[in-house]
Amino acid sequence: MIIYNTKNWAKAFYRILPFTKEYSSRTLNRATLIILIYNTLVTLIQKDLVKEHLEIDNIYFNFIGTVLGFVLVFRLNTAYGKWWEGRQLWGSLVNTCRTIAAYAHTVLPEKDRDQREYFALQVTNFPFALKGHLRQNFDWEDFEEPVANYKQTLQKVSHVPFRISADLNAKVESLHKAGVFSDMDKYHLARQVQQLNDIMGGCERIRNTPLPYAHSSFIKKFLIFFCAALPFGLLDSFGYSTILLASMVSYAMSALEIISEELEEPFGKDPDDLPLNQLSTTIRKNVYEILEQNRAVREVKKVDSVIVY
Amino acid sequence: MIIYNTKNWAKAFYRILPFTKEYSSRTLNRATLIILIYNTLVTLIQKDLVKEHLEIDNIYFNFIGTVLGFVLVFRLNTAYGKWWEGRQLWGSLVNTCRTIAAYAHTVLPEKDRDQREYFALQVTNFPFALKGHLRQNFDWEDFEEPVANYKQTLQKVSHVPFRISADLNAKVESLHKAGVFSDMDKYHLARQVQQLNDIMGGCERIRNTPLPYAHSSFIKKFLIFFCAALPFGLLDSFGYSTILLASMVSYAMSALEIISEELEEPFGKDPDDLPLNQLSTTIRKNVYEILEQNRAVREVKKVDSVIVY
Amino acid sequence: MIIYNTKNWAKAFYRILPFTKEYSSRTLNRATLIILIYNTLVTLIQKDLVKEHLEIDNIYFNFIGTVLGFVLVFRLNTAYGKWWEGRQLWGSLVNTCRTIAAYAHTVLPEKDRDQREYFALQVTNFPFALKGHLRQNFDWEDFEEPVANYKQTLQKVSHVPFRISADLNAKVESLHKAGVFSDMDKYHLARQVQQLNDIMGGCERIRNTPLPYAHSSFIKKFLIFFCAALPFGLLDSFGYSTILLASMVSYAMSALEIISEELEEPFGKDPDDLPLNQLSTTIRKNVYEILEQNRAVREVKKVDSVIVY
Amino acid sequence: MIIYNTKNWAKAFYRILPFTKEYSSRTLNRATLIILIYNTLVTLIQKDLVKEHLEIDNIYFNFIGTVLGFVLVFRLNTAYGKWWEGRQLWGSLVNTCRTIAAYAHTVLPEKDRDQREYFALQVTNFPFALKGHLRQNFDWEDFEEPVANYKQTLQKVSHVPFRISADLNAKVESLHKAGVFSDMDKYHLARQVQQLNDIMGGCERIRNTPLPYAHSSFIKKFLIFFCAALPFGLLDSFGYSTILLASMVSYAMSALEIISEELEEPFGKDPDDLPLNQLSTTIRKNVYEILEQNRAVREVKKVDSVIVY
Amino acid sequence: MIIYNTKNWAKAFYRILPFTKEYSSRTLNRATLIILIYNTLVTLIQKDLVKEHLEIDNIYFNFIGTVLGFVLVFRLNTAYGKWWEGRQLWGSLVNTCRTIAAYAHTVLPEKDRDQREYFALQVTNFPFALKGHLRQNFDWEDFEEPVANYKQTLQKVSHVPFRISADLNAKVESLHKAGVFSDMDKYHLARQVQQLNDIMGGCERIRNTPLPYAHSSFIKKFLIFFCAALPFGLLDSFGYSTILLASMVSYAMSALEIISEELEEPFGKDPDDLPLNQLSTTIRKNVYEILEQNRAVREVKKVDSVIVY
Repeated sequence: MIIYNTKNWAKAFYRILPFTKEYSSRTLNRATLIILIYNTLVTLIQKDLVKEHLEIDNIYFNFIGTVLGFVLVFRLNTAYGKWWEGRQLWGSLVNTCRTIAAYAHTVLPEKDRDQREYFALQVTNFPFALKGHLRQNFDWEDFEEPVANYKQTLQKVSHVPFRISADLNAKVESLHKAGVFSDMDKYHLARQVQQLNDIMGGCERIRNTPLPYAHSSFIKKFLIFFCAALPFGLLDSFGYSTILLASMVSYAMSALEIISEELEEPFGKDPDDLPLNQLSTTIRKNVYEILEQNRAVREVKKVDSVIVY
Repeated sequence: MIIYNTKNWAKAFYRILPFTKEYSSRTLNRATLIILIYNTLVTLIQKDLVKEHLEIDNIYFNFIGTVLGFVLVFRLNTAYGKWWEGRQLWGSLVNTCRTIAAYAHTVLPEKDRDQREYFALQVTNFPFALKGHLRQNFDWEDFEEPVANYKQTLQKVSHVPFRISADLNAKVESLHKAGVFSDMDKYHLARQVQQLNDIMGGCERIRNTPLPYAHSSFIKKFLIFFCAALPFGLLDSFGYSTILLASMVSYAMSALEIISEELEEPFGKDPDDLPLNQLSTTIRKNVYEILEQNRAVREVKKVDSVIVY
Repeated sequence: MIIYNTKNWAKAFYRILPFTKEYSSRTLNRATLIILIYNTLVTLIQKDLVKEHLEIDNIYFNFIGTVLGFVLVFRLNTAYGKWWEGRQLWGSLVNTCRTIAAYAHTVLPEKDRDQREYFALQVTNFPFALKGHLRQNFDWEDFEEPVANYKQTLQKVSHVPFRISADLNAKVESLHKAGVFSDMDKYHLARQVQQLNDIMGGCERIRNTPLPYAHSSFIKKFLIFFCAALPFGLLDSFGYSTILLASMVSYAMSALEIISEELEEPFGKDPDDLPLNQLSTTIRKNVYEILEQNRAVREVKKVDSVIVY
Repeated sequence: MIIYNTKNWAKAFYRILPFTKEYSSRTLNRATLIILIYNTLVTLIQKDLVKEHLEIDNIYFNFIGTVLGFVLVFRLNTAYGKWWEGRQLWGSLVNTCRTIAAYAHTVLPEKDRDQREYFALQVTNFPFALKGHLRQNFDWEDFEEPVANYKQTLQKVSHVPFRISADLNAKVESLHKAGVFSDMDKYHLARQVQQLNDIMGGCERIRNTPLPYAHSSFIKKFLIFFCAALPFGLLDSFGYSTILLASMVSYAMSALEIISEELEEPFGKDPDDLPLNQLSTTIRKNVYEILEQNRAVREVKKVDSVIVY
Repeated sequence: MIIYNTKNWAKAFYRILPFTKEYSSRTLNRATLIILIYNTLVTLIQKDLVKEHLEIDNIYFNFIGTVLGFVLVFRLNTAYGKWWEGRQLWGSLVNTCRTIAAYAHTVLPEKDRDQREYFALQVTNFPFALKGHLRQNFDWEDFEEPVANYKQTLQKVSHVPFRISADLNAKVESLHKAGVFSDMDKYHLARQVQQLNDIMGGCERIRNTPLPYAHSSFIKKFLIFFCAALPFGLLDSFGYSTILLASMVSYAMSALEIISEELEEPFGKDPDDLPLNQLSTTIRKNVYEILEQNRAVREVKKVDSVIVY
C-alpha cells in the first residue's frame, strides 16, 4: 500500500516518471507510448500521404465515447468495490482476533499462563496463514508455535488457515470439557471462530473471482477499437493536434481500465494492494499487549513495499 | 468458468473467432453478421437508389443513444449483481460446510468414526445436491451414501437438497438426545443448517427470477429500433463509412445486452457460469481433510467447461 | 409473473400487439397513440400553416433529454430495487417456513401426529394469509384448519397473518411448557416466527410506500413538458421525419416511467407482479413432504395470470 | 404523507397550483417566478439594448449542464436513500413492537391482566415518544399510563423514548426475578428492546445529519451560477424563445435540488414526510388486538396532513 | 460539523468569502485564483500574440469533460459513502453505549452504587478514547476514573480504547463470577462489548484507508490536464469570454475533487468533519441520566468548531 497525503496535489505527478515499478504505472507508461506512436503514424500518413480518407465526424466519437465512458466508470466502481470489500474483511479480521483475545484474557484464570500463551500465539498465526494462503507463498518465519513442532504440522496440510481455525475450535472444546469455559463461553468463541472462517472464505472468493471473461474481454475489445479509430475521427477537424488530443483521450480511457485491473486483486504485492503484513503485525501487537505476552513482535519487513510519498 | 489472466490484453481477442462455443460469443457473432449485412444493404440502397431519404441528423442519435447507453449499462450492472450474488452464496456455502465439519470434528468423540463419517459424507452431499437441483440434472455418481441405499431414498424425493439438510437436522437431534451434543451445540448446528437452507433459497430465487418481462422486452425493442434506424441517420454525414460506423455502435450496444443475458443466469453450464463442480469438490476435499477421512475425492470432470486461456 | 425465455429476441415484440392486457402494455399503447397523434398535428400545423415558429435547436433537447434520461433511469432502478426486495422477502419466506417445518419435524416425537399436523397446516397458512393481506382479498379456500373452525376465527380478525404468527408462538410456548421443546428450541423457533413478522412488515412497507409524491409528480411533469416541446424542437432540422423521430423518443421516455410504475408495486395481480400463489403452493408442497403429510396440495389456479411466451 | 394513485397521470399537475402548502411546492413556485422574471429581463435587455454581448455557445451549456445534472441526480438519490432508510426504520419499529407484544402475550400467564396491560401500554408509548422526540414536540395526549402519573415522570426526563425502553427493560428484569420469564425469555426480550434503541439511534442520526455543508453549499452555488448564466448562452441561437427555454431548464434543475431538500428530512410535518402518527396508531391497534386490550384507540387526527388526491 | 439550515439558499454563498478557514474553502479559493490567472494569461497571450494556435474544437471538451464528470461524481459518492459510514458507526456507538448502560442499570442491584458508577464512567470513557485514538491526540481531561489512577494506566497503553473495552469485559466476568450476572447476562454484555470493538475497527479502517493511490493520482492528473487544456479549446469560439467560461468549468470540476478529499476523512477537526466531541458528550449525558449519576457533565468546548450559520 502506498501511504500518501491525499491532499497533496503536487505529488500526484510522481507516477508519471517511468521508473516507478507498480503494475498500473508500468502498464500505463507502456500503453501511453504505444498510443502516442500509433496516433503519430496515423496522423502523418493520413494527412500527408492519403488523399481520400474515412469520413468520421467527431460527434460520432462524442457519443460512442460517452457510452464507453459509462462502461469504464462502472467497471472502476466494481473493481474498487472488491478492493474495499477486501479491506473490510481484513478490518473485520482485526476486530475478530482482538475479540477472541480479549475474551480469552477475561475468562482464562490469570495464572494459567500456558493457555493464555496458546491463544496469543494461535490467534495471531491466523492472519499470517491467511496472508500466505492468499498469496500462495508462506513465510514460515512469521509463524509462532503454540505447540511443539507446529510449523511442521502446518507444512503438511493443504489448507493452512482452515487448520488453524479448526485447532482453535478444538482447544476451546477441550477447555470446555475441562470446565474452564461454560456453555455460553464455548458458544461465543465458536461464533468468533466461525467468523474467522467466513472472512477466509470471503477473501478466497475475491481472489478467485475476477470479472466474468465475457465482460472483461468485451471491455478490452471495445476500448482498443475505440482508441484505434479515434485519430481517423479527429483528423479532419484538428489536423496535427490530433496526435495530442487523441492520445489524451486514449490515455484517460486506458487508465480507467488498467487501474481497475490493479484494484480488483487486492491481496497481491503491488504497491496499491492491501498491506497484509502490516495488518497482521498490528493484530499481533494488540493481542500480545492484551494477553500480557512479553515476546517481542518482529518488525514488519517492507515486503508490502509501502512507499511513503 | 473461464480462468484467464485479467491483465493479458492480447488474449482478449480470442473470443472474436467464430468457433468458440459460448452463448454470448456465438450470439454476438451471429448478431454482428446480421448487423453488417443490414447496414450494408441500407447504405447501398439509400446511397445509390433512393434519391429522397429520411432526414435524420446524427445529433439525434447522439442523444437517443446516450439514453439507451444508460439503460444498458444499468442492465449490465443488475445482471452482474446477480452473478456476484450467486458467487457470494456459493462462497457462503463453502464457509458453512467447513464450519459444520470443523464443529462436528471438535465435539464428536475422537473414536466415534461412524458419526464422523456420517457428517463428512452428508455435509459434502449438500453442494452436489444443490448443483443438481439448480441445473435440473443430478449426477448421482457425485453422491456418497452416509446410510445404506441413501441414493435410492434421494431419487424418490422431489426436493433433494432440502431432504439432505432435514436429515442433517435429524442426525443432530438424535445425537443431542443421545447426550453427545449439548443444548448450545444443537442450537449452533441448527443455525448452520438453517444457513444451508437460506443459501439454497437464495440460489433458487436467482435462478427463477429473470428481469421482469416488461423491463426485458422494452430493452430489446429499444435496442432493435435503435440499430435499425442508425444507418439512416449516419448516411448523410458519413457516406459509405456508415457501414463500418453503424456496425461498430450496434455491436457495442448488442454486446452489452447479450453479456447481461449470460451473466444473469450464473448456475448454468456456459463457460462464464460459476464452476459449481469445482466448488463442490473443493468443499469435499476440505471437509475430508478436517474430519480425517481417507477416502479419495473424485477428480472434477471438466463438465463446467473450464477453459484456461 | 410472465415466464419467458430471456434469450429469445423474436418474442420480445409480442407485447406490441394491442390485445395484451397488462398494465404497462396497455398504458404504453395508449400513450404511444396519443404521442403519435400529437406529433402529427404539431408537425403538420407548424410546417404548413404557421410561418413564424419557435426557434428551438435540437442541441437544446440533447441536453435537457440527457438529464431527463438520468432521472428516469434512476427511477427505473429504484422501482426495480423494490420489486427485487419484494422477491427477496418472499424468497426469505420460503426459507423460513421450510426451516420451521424441518425443525418441528426433527424435534417433535415421531408418533405425535397431531402436533406435526398442526405445524404443517399453520406454517403453510401464513404465506396465503400474507398474500391475501397484501392484495386485500382473502381466498378462504386456500386456508387449512389446524384447529376446528379456525377460518371463522381468522375472518373476525383485523390482521390475519399477524394472528397466525402469534398463534404459532402460542403453540411453541405450550409445547415448551409441556416439556417437548427445550429452552433453546423455543428460542430458535421464536426467532423464526419473529422472522415471519419481519417479512410481513417488509412487504407492508413496500406495498404502502410509493415514491414520495413530490418526486413522482415532478417526474411526470418533466416528462410531459419534454414530450410536448419535442416536435417544435425537431421540426426545423427534420421536417416531416419529426413525426417519427419525436414519437420514438417520447415512446422510450414514457416507457421507462410506465414500467417503473408497474414494477414498484410487486404484490398485485398484473402479469409482471410476483407469483405469490405459486410461491405459497411451493412452500406448502415442501412443508407437507418434510412433515410427511399425505394431504393433497390443491393445484394453483392461474390467478396470477402466468403467461408462458 | 400524500396518498395518491401512482398510475394517475392527470393528477400529477395539481401541484402546479399556487395554493398547495407543501415546502417543495411553495419553494418551487417562488423559484419559478424568480427564474421567469430574471430570464425575461436578461433577454429583453440583451436583445434590445445591448449591442455587444457575451459570446457563449449552447454546446458549452450542454456540457456544464450534463455535469450539473449528474451531481443533482446523485443528490436526489442520496436524499431519497435517507427518506427510504427512515421508512425502513419505522417499518422495523412496527415489526419490533409487534414481536414484543406477541411474545409477552405468549409467555405471560393468561390471567395476569396487569402485566399484559403494562406491556400493551408501554410498548405502544414508544412510537409516540419517538415521534415527539424527532419532531421536538410531544403530544402528551398520545401517551398511556402503564403506571400511575407516568406522564409526569416522562415530562421531567431529557430523553423520553430512551426512558421508556429502559423502563421496559426493568419490567422484563423484574418479571425474570419473579420467575415469570426464563433466562432465554429475558435474553430474547432484551434483544428486542435493544432493537428499539437501535431504531431510535438510527432516526436521530438521519434527523441530525444533513448533507455536509461543503457539499450542500457547492451544489447550491453551482446551480445558481448555472441558472444565472443560462439566458446569456441561449440568446444568440434562440432569440425571444430564450425566456421559455432557459426557464424550463432552470425549473427542472432547481426542482431536483428542492425535492432533495424535502426528502432528506423525512420526520417533519410536511406532506411528503413519513406518516408517523398513522404508523404509531397502527402499532397501537395491532398490539391491543393481540394482547386483547379492549381500550379504544384514539383516531388519528390529521396532524400529518395526509392529502388524498 | 457545521450546523446550518438546509433550506436556506441565501447562506450558501457565505463560503465564497476568503476568510473562512475550512480546508475545502481555503483550497478552493486558492485553486480558483490560480485557475483565473492561468486562464487570463492563456487567453491574452493566444489571442493577442500568437497567430497560429492549436485547433481544438469545444465538442472535444464536451466529451472528455463528460467522462471526467462521471469519474468525479462517482469519486464524490465514494467519499460521501465513507463520511456517512463514519457517521453510522458513531450513531451505532451511541446505541451500544446506551444499551450497555440500560442493561447494567436493570440487572445491577439498585443499592450497588459502586458498580453502577463503574459502568457509568467506563462506558462513557470509551467514546472519548476512540475520539482521541482517531485524532491521535488524547484530551485527558475528558476521561473519568472508574478506578483510582486509571488515567495513568491508560497513558501507558498503546491502544487506549481497546484497553477500555477489555477492562469492561473483565468487569463483566468478575461480576459474573460473583453471581451478579447470569450466563445470559454475560453473553449479552460480551456481545455489546464486541460491538464496541467492531465500531472501533470500522473507524480505524476508514481513517487508515484513503482511495488507492493509483486511483487518486489518476483523478488529479486527469483533472489538471483537462483544466490546463480547456482555455485553448474554448478560445476560438468564445474569445475573451474564455476567461470566465473556462474558469467556471475548472472551478466546478476542482470543487468536486476538493470536497471529496475533505469528506473522505470524517474524523478530523475540519468544520465538515463529524462532531465527535458533541456525540461523546451526548452519550455521557444519556448514560449518566439512566444510571442516575448526579455528576455534572462538562460542557463541550467548541473544539469541533461547530459553526452555526
